[in-house]
Amino acid sequence: MPIHAVILAGGGGRRLWPLSRTLYPKQFLALLGEHSLLQRTVLRIHDMIPAERLWIVTAQEQSFYVQSQLGDIGHSGRIIAEPQGRNTAAAVGLAACHIQQRDPEAVTVVLPADHWIKKPQEFLSLIQDAIALAERGALVTLGIIPDQAETGYGYICRGEPLTNAPSEQSVYAVSRFVEKPNISDARRYVDSGEYYWNAGIFVWRTSVIMDEIAAHLPALSQGLEEIAPALHRADEKDTLKRVYAQLASVSIDHGVLEKSSRLVVMPAAIGWSDLGKWSTIHQFSDQDERGNVLSPSVLDIESENSLVYSSGRTIATIGLKNMIVVDTPDALLVCAQERTSEVGSLVQQLLARGDQTVHTPNMVRRPWGSYTVLEEGPQFKVKRIVVEPGGGLSLQRHRRRSEHWVVISGVATIIRGEEELTLGVDQSTYIPQGTKHRLSNRGTQPLQIIEVQTGAYLGEDDIERLEDVYGRV
Amino acid sequence: MPIHAVILAGGGGRRLWPLSRTLYPKQFLALLGEHSLLQRTVLRIHDMIPAERLWIVTAQEQSFYVQSQLGDIGHSGRIIAEPQGRNTAAAVGLAACHIQQRDPEAVTVVLPADHWIKKPQEFLSLIQDAIALAERGALVTLGIIPDQAETGYGYICRGEPLTNAPSEQSVYAVSRFVEKPNISDARRYVDSGEYYWNAGIFVWRTSVIMDEIAAHLPALSQGLEEIAPALHRADEKDTLKRVYAQLASVSIDHGVLEKSSRLVVMPAAIGWSDLGKWSTIHQFSDQDERGNVLSPSVLDIESENSLVYSSGRTIATIGLKNMIVVDTPDALLVCAQERTSEVGSLVQQLLARGDQTVHTPNMVRRPWGSYTVLEEGPQFKVKRIVVEPGGGLSLQRHRRRSEHWVVISGVATIIRGEEELTLGVDQSTYIPQGTKHRLSNRGTQPLQIIEVQTGAYLGEDDIERLEDVYGRV
Repeated sequence: MPIHAVILAGGGGRRLWPLSRTLYPKQFLALLGEHSLLQRTVLRIHDMIPAERLWIVTAQEQSFYVQSQLGDIGHSGRIIAEPQGRNTAAAVGLAACHIQQRDPEAVTVVLPADHWIKKPQEFLSLIQDAIALAERGALVTLGIIPDQAETGYGYICRGEPLTNAPSEQSVYAVSRFVEKPNISDARRYVDSGEYYWNAGIFVWRTSVIMDEIAAHLPALSQGLEEIAPALHRADEKDTLKRVYAQLASVSIDHGVLEKSSRLVVMPAAIGWSDLGKWSTIHQFSDQDERGNVLSPSVLDIESENSLVYSSGRTIATIGLKNMIVVDTPDALLVCAQERTSEVGSLVQQLLARGDQTVHTPNMVRRPWGSYTVLEEGPQFKVKRIVVEPGGGLSLQRHRRRSEHWVVISGVATIIRGEEELTLGVDQSTYIPQGTKHRLSNRGTQPLQIIEVQTGAYLGEDDIERLEDVYGRV
Repeated sequence: MPIHAVILAGGGGRRLWPLSRTLYPKQFLALLGEHSLLQRTVLRIHDMIPAERLWIVTAQEQSFYVQSQLGDIGHSGRIIAEPQGRNTAAAVGLAACHIQQRDPEAVTVVLPADHWIKKPQEFLSLIQDAIALAERGALVTLGIIPDQAETGYGYICRGEPLTNAPSEQSVYAVSRFVEKPNISDARRYVDSGEYYWNAGIFVWRTSVIMDEIAAHLPALSQGLEEIAPALHRADEKDTLKRVYAQLASVSIDHGVLEKSSRLVVMPAAIGWSDLGKWSTIHQFSDQDERGNVLSPSVLDIESENSLVYSSGRTIATIGLKNMIVVDTPDALLVCAQERTSEVGSLVQQLLARGDQTVHTPNMVRRPWGSYTVLEEGPQFKVKRIVVEPGGGLSLQRHRRRSEHWVVISGVATIIRGEEELTLGVDQSTYIPQGTKHRLSNRGTQPLQIIEVQTGAYLGEDDIERLEDVYGRV
């Protein structure tokens, strides 16, 4: 049977604020080493599963991040863009529709994009065993053997051992799922040896999970039946949008697996973590002899057991003990190590204050490149805009602002009203309010411009897109 | 006898980095409440000593800060600009030259510009007593009654009590000066009741201190004799520069007072502090019920006994204990409370790294207004420039950069080569490399422009000043 992989790369992230943002969540961050968690997830399985059988489910507005991150590591995959997030049952189901059209007999490995696995060889070997079980009809989940009483994870309690396991690897029926427990229950679970962390890693035959969805989530199943024939048709996008708007948000664990008799759990010791809080990042990072993890621009005097992350500004630290400092261009977190699990509720409070740093990173990625807001004030905004070679913004106009552009690197091709201009470094132009315009980079080097906006209203929503190569009109 | 005051406002500050910078030291910072320490020093004595007898000695490049800070509180004074810092003996001597020309019989009160006095009434009453003593020929110093064993201050050990003190206030001869002691000596000093902190507050007759300088620092005395006749002459500036270049850097305490038999000390309980480290700022600030001092943009969860200073960015803190966090646009300090006295040596290390945040604040004040660097990169720099009403930059040109200007508020009057332009909001111009230009604000509102510089070299020293109303040509 052909093996496919589905990487679930949707969903926002708040617990690693201020580095993670709603619009730039954890899976895209290079938290440990040079690759992002998404990139690592791809690299981990690329020997086992080739690009044409690799599916990445993500949010519409994040699909170009996925594309660009895959490109950066010389990989590709099939990106499935959801019109909105509807939890893992819908994401798994949608991917299964795609896979079934190509390989009705496929076995699928489901992988979250935002987890850390320290022992990739052990992981791959377990996945091989799981595939063998899945081929025989089981829904297989990896159960991470816990090494501490963690209250932030869900647990799986094992049942009877399977007698017909395909290898040396022991496999169990599943007795029950437990949501995030309190600390005393968590300790009891760990001590018992019968509980595992639910890592959201699953292996099954596509036809089997479809049957189980039909049995336990009939509304989702019906929705998928509407979607399946529309795939690759002109009305695919509209159909998806219509069906998704009506779907309930439910996880595959809660909606299907908990209710299925086919579920088995395979204990796994693979150095797994969801890197869900800053103290965990600290724990999994390479620490110096004092237990510190310090960015290169940090000057430290005798701190201990602390993580100090800098985006490049000068940071000096003296005598920190068990601290987390995370500095980004527009927001700073300083937190005691033992309280990093409260960052989620902190972000809630920031949201209530209307704090924009929760949603948008200082550097906003776009399909054509990125922009960074350098300063915002009454009736003005200054941005640095980077357009990658071959990239171009939409043909657009703004009703309430005008823009001044100064090229600081590369060559800009500009449509401005009825004119076309070519500007090099140290040249500038002016886009009056209401004038249609487009900025493109036909060169081979990145184009950078400084944009000075003036006007009474400078919101990003003051944009009328007339043409767009990325389909955003 | 007419009473004069000399405020010593020279000198840099490193111990409150990153808020204080070499080019914007402590005396100009509003550390507690709305006024800077310099402004508070002026406000404290303005009822006793009028503007025409108030002298402020400062560094040449900081004299416009002094002027603008005095203006902001509706005050003025006579600013004496030193061509370079030569410690307090030279500063005191130079001020004495000025004062002697106006009032040969003057009594002078010498006040550091960067200290905090919690009890201004008690302070003024002591100064009155000190003036009475000084009129009779004494060199009077206030000795602060210590309330803790502080190793960061110099101490004065008292000698025999004076029997002819002019009021109820007890006064002592001075037995010796002690430099910053170690902690056990400091404890012993405080317990003895015979030691005071040296606050650098002195009262004397100008003629008496001049005699003492002549006796103990003959080289300085000779220099002052060269300077005195040149004051208010065309060659004043050149003479000052020439003489200062040859002066030794010595404090008035060490160079004169320690050696003088006329010195007396007047114990003072005036809530004094030099606010010389961050933990002292915390101690003297209004704290909330948990002992915290938090800027308005800080969102805190259950921190204790901590100071968190924000320049406006989003800062979130969780569970801090006895911490100092000071965030500025270009540098961040995170420090354990008990180690803030190490900031000075930290700054040494930053200097050794070539870190620019030691010298220059992110917002640089100029006689005509200020500028803020928004971003700097290879071959470009973006600034926001504010020109105050009536202000104007020098007529200048740059050899290695060109500049693009976009007006974002106010009205700009611009000389550009042979043209004169008037630009309003949303208008722009371009100053090519080598073109002479001037930017002025003839309006009544502040003028703000965004400047985009491009060029191979963007240092501030690439400036040729052709004309300048502030005498900087």
